Formats: sequence, structure tokens, C-alpha cells
Amino acid sequence: MSEAVQMIPGNSLITKTPEEGRQLAVKMARLVIKVTQPDAEVREKLRPVYAEDAAMLLAVGQVVATEFATIAAANNYWR
Amino acid sequence: MSEAVQMIPGNSLITKTPEEGRQLAVKMARLVIKVTQPDAEVREKLRPVYAEDAAMLLAVGQVVATEFATIAAANNYWR
Amino acid sequence: MSEAVQMIPGNSLITKTPEEGRQLAVKMARLVIKVTQPDAEVREKLRPVYAEDAAMLLAVGQVVATEFATIAAANNYWR
Amino acid sequence: MSEAVQMIPGNSLITKTPEEGRQLAVKMARLVIKVTQPDAEVREKLRPVYAEDAAMLLAVGQVVATEFATIAAANNYWR
Amino acid sequence: MSEAVQMIPGNSLITKTPEEGRQLAVKMARLVIKVTQPDAEVREKLRPVYAEDAAMLLAVGQVVATEFATIAAANNYWR
Amino acid sequence: MSEAVQMIPGNSLITKTPEEGRQLAVKMARLVIKVTQPDAEVREKLRPVYAEDAAMLLAVGQVVATEFATIAAANNYWR
Repeated sequence: MSEAVQMIPGNSLITKTPEEGRQLAVKMARLVIKVTQPDAEVREKLRPVYAEDAAMLLAVGQVVATEFATIAAANNYWR
Repeated sequence: MSEAVQMIPGNSLITKTPEEGRQLAVKMARLVIKVTQPDAEVREKLRPVYAEDAAMLLAVGQVVATEFATIAAANNYWR
Repeated sequence: MSEAVQMIPGNSLITKTPEEGRQLAVKMARLVIKVTQPDAEVREKLRPVYAEDAAMLLAVGQVVATEFATIAAANNYWR
Repeated sequence: MSEAVQMIPGNSLITKTPEEGRQLAVKMARLVIKVTQPDAEVREKLRPVYAEDAAMLLAVGQVVATEFATIAAANNYWR
Repeated sequence: MSEAVQMIPGNSLITKTPEEGRQLAVKMARLVIKVTQPDAEVREKLRPVYAEDAAMLLAVGQVVATEFATIAAANNYWR
Repeated sequence: MSEAVQMIPGNSLITKTPEEGRQLAVKMARLVIKVTQPDAEVREKLRPVYAEDAAMLLAVGQVVATEFATIAAANNYWR
């Protein structure tokens, strides 16, 4: 494997509940950032940039929404 | 669970009507922001930034549209 | 309901024609903005910002395209 | 109807070929802009902004891609 | 037809392989730009803007990903 | 073929696991950038721009999420 970081915890898109699916979406979004910026110190410095800027928070929301769409389809929407 | 905030109210994507599905989309969009920025005071300060800036309002609209697409599919479009 | 504004006119995604579906997409995009910024006076001030800025007009186009994708699927593309 | 501009030419998403579907996507993207900015003179002034700015051209491309995804699905991908 | 430029080479979304589908996605993304900015000289001047700016390269990537999603679905993912 | 760079490693969207699908998404996102900016030296100079800027990291996340949606569908979500 060319990537040392595991990008999908549990290596599965299947979750028991929508809430767990949503948590997976948040984690998957964060792990792409970890792969792109492997230096923990740099990521730590960037954290307040995401969390205190309205545009960044919305961009986080857009990425999570996109990941969640895939996870929800994988789980047949937990119907 | 690593997230203290509940990200999907009711832990279900199923709603009785499109209107309630739309409200769920708005809430889910807001809850991702809450998870990313847990400090209520900071979020309060950012609120006018979203609400008084045309580009931010459109970004909110984009996130809600994306969340709603998933919720609508989950509900088989309330056909 | 926590939102006073009705976000989906008619509380249905089903329309008779593609044209009416497109009008619904435009209205749904606008109503998210109304929920996020309930003050009519502020929205009135922002209107020329959307309408006279190329980047904003394209962002409006992106939101409408996303809403319309959902409405079109709901209507089985009016086939 | 609250909108004077026809937003979907022919009031149908069905086209004979992918090429015509693509042309419809471009037209639908432009007509949302026309509805949002009905003043032809203002739109004329904005045209070079779209056409001479790399970021704007890419934003146009993103909107057209999104509209086309819907049209292609409506036509069952002209298979 | 109002557009002189052919926007979908071969007038088909069907390709033999994923790789050819990806190439079609890149071409379709470029041809929307050509339709919006028909002047070859202006496009030539914009080329380094796309290719030497990180944000632009990512925007190109987003458009190509969106076009490719449609092409992949059209080809039933070359399964 | 007009593109010298191979854009889909293995010329297939099918992977054994979600994790490998995610790695493919990251690679496909990077290869579009390689096609658009073939000069390795320029890409090398841009790398820190992606990796040290919060907005860029989120844009990378958005592209990867979009590519992954296609790959996940191709693999029937590894169900």
C-alpha cells in the first residue's frame, strides 16, 4: 500500500446507524487531510483556521455532506 | 463514540414529509459545524458572518442542497 | 417545527413539468437563504450583490443545479 | 408562474443525442443567471468577466457538469 | 444548433475502458471552456493560470471528477 | 491517445476493499493535476501550497470525496 495512514476506519462503509455513518463521514474527511498533510504539527496549527472561519466551516460541511451521501447509499439509507 | 454531539437528530434519515426532510437537512448542516467548532461562543460570533454575507449564504445553500439530496433519496422522494 | 418559514412550497417535490420543477429548485434555493437570514431588510440589501457579481451568479447556478437534480430524480425526470 | 423567463427550453430534459443534451445543460445554466439578473445590460457587462477569468470559466464548467449529470440520467445516458 | 463547437467528441458517453472515459471527462471539461471563451488567444493566455495555481488545479480536478461520475454511470462502471 | 499520463492506475474502478478504493480516489485526483500540469518541477513547488493551506486541504478533500463516490458505486459499495 502506498499510503501509511488508514483512510477508512474498519475498512468498511457499513455502519449500524445513521449517526455512526455520519461519524464515519467526519472521520473520512479528516483522514484525507491527514494523508495530504502527514505532519501532525502543521495540522495542529491549521485546526483553528478551520474552526474559527465561517467559510472554512462551510467547506468542512460540504465535504462531510459529500462523504455522507456515499455512506448513506452504501447502507441503503438504513431503511 | 468519539463525538459527543449527536449529528443526526432522531438517528434516522426518514421523515414524514419533504418539509421535515428539509428541516433535517438544515439541522444536519448546522451540527457538522457544531462538531467542528464546539465552542458556542465562537459559533455565536460567526453567525452574523454567515447571515450577512451573500457568498456565505450561498455556501450554506449548497451544503443544505447536498444534505437534502441524500435525505430525499432515503425517503424515496416522498412519492 | 423549529423553522417558521416554509422551506418547500406545497410540501412536495412532485411537479407537472420540468419547467415547474426548475421553478421549485429556484424557490427552494431562495428559501434556505430566508431561513438563514430571516431579516427581509438585510436580504434586500444583499440582492444586488448576487445579481451583479459574476461569481455569485455562478454560485446561485450551482445551488439551483443541485436542488434541481433532486427534484428531477423525484419526478423520474418527467419521462 | 412567478418567473417570466422560460428556464428549460422545450420544457423537457429529453434530447436525441448527448451533444444536444450538453447544449441543453449550457442553456439551463445560462437561464438561471438570466432569472437571477433579468437586466440584459448588466448581464452583457458581466460576460467578459466569465470569459476572461480562469476561476470563472471553471465555475461555469462545474455548473454545466452538474446540469449535464441530471440531463444524462434523464436520457438513460443515451445508451 | 446555436453552438459551433462540438462539446462531446464522438457524440457518445460510451467508452471501451475507464481510462478512455477519464480522457473523455477531461475533454468535456475543456470544451465547455472553449464554448464559453471561443477566442483561442485568450484561452492560451489563461492556460498557465490553471496550470500554475494550486486552487485552479483543484478546481479542474473537481470539474473532471463531476464529469467522470456521469461517464462512469453511463458505462455501468465498465464492470 | 492524446494523454501520455495514465489517469486510472490499472485501468479499472474495481478494488478489493473500501480502503483500496479510497487510495484509488486519491491517486485519480492527483493524476488529473499531473495531466493539467505535466511539469514535475512546478508540481513540486505547488505541493506545500496544498498541504499547508486549510482551504486547499478542504478542496483536496472535496475532490477525493467526489471521486470516491464514483468508485464506491462502481464496487457496489463493497457490500
